[in-house]
Amino acid sequence: METDEKFMKEALREAHAAAEENEVPIGAVIVCGNKIIGKGHNMTEKLHDPTAHAEMIAITAATGIMGSKYLNDCTLYVTIEPCPMCAGAIAWAQTGRLVYGAIDPKKGYSQFSPSIMHPKTKIQAGILAEECGKIVTEYFKNKR
Amino acid sequence: METDEKFMKEALREAHAAAEENEVPIGAVIVCGNKIIGKGHNMTEKLHDPTAHAEMIAITAATGIMGSKYLNDCTLYVTIEPCPMCAGAIAWAQTGRLVYGAIDPKKGYSQFSPSIMHPKTKIQAGILAEECGKIVTEYFKNKR
Repeated sequence: METDEKFMKEALREAHAAAEENEVPIGAVIVCGNKIIGKGHNMTEKLHDPTAHAEMIAITAATGIMGSKYLNDCTLYVTIEPCPMCAGAIAWAQTGRLVYGAIDPKKGYSQFSPSIMHPKTKIQAGILAEECGKIVTEYFKNKR
Repeated sequence: METDEKFMKEALREAHAAAEENEVPIGAVIVCGNKIIGKGHNMTEKLHDPTAHAEMIAITAATGIMGSKYLNDCTLYVTIEPCPMCAGAIAWAQTGRLVYGAIDPKKGYSQFSPSIMHPKTKIQAGILAEECGKIVTEYFKNKR
């Protein structure tokens, strides 16, 4: 649990970096052997690319470092529940474990189909959920 | 219909390029105003990247060209029904129209949840379905 909070704080750091760039503040890190091997934050506005979600960027970085398209022994930390696109990518990578902060009651993959996730991926929700959700809520409040 | 077949043939050309690179042979093109503005084929093996599906590469290319993360006035042609990851990306891009060849009874997004797709995206399945499916079947037959 302590380790999960430690790495979620790193994902939150990424989320804050997104906020500073006027992006929806979601961040992700991928950990293997207690080491961060990939990280990312939402960059859809900057890159004009709808695929540039935090998790996607982190997965591309981590698999690049690993030289393998699989992340069986890795944990992906993300501040908000993944959308179906990112859940699909997490599944293709056969990611060993997924830890997320706040649920996304609108766009979270579990609203569509929990089976998008790979059956072998262990899932833990709710780590630093309040803090993870709050920065997104505040971002949209300031947008209005 | 003729136009759809014409552009699906371009997607098939991409799929054949994937086969030559020993990748699962799936190809995609994105068309706007009767012009191809993005294309791609599966490159997951070459890039060691599980996110490098034909549709994802084509979307990143097309949105880059457009300077917008939306593809409202575009049609995405892909040889095989998109997986949940790619369907999610097609939805985020608010893609105007999706045309695919063969259905994917195992990994197609409609097996998980048809609502992954954006409600405004018009969907046409079955264009050159036999040819689109056949190259994938043959690819896996040769792998065994």
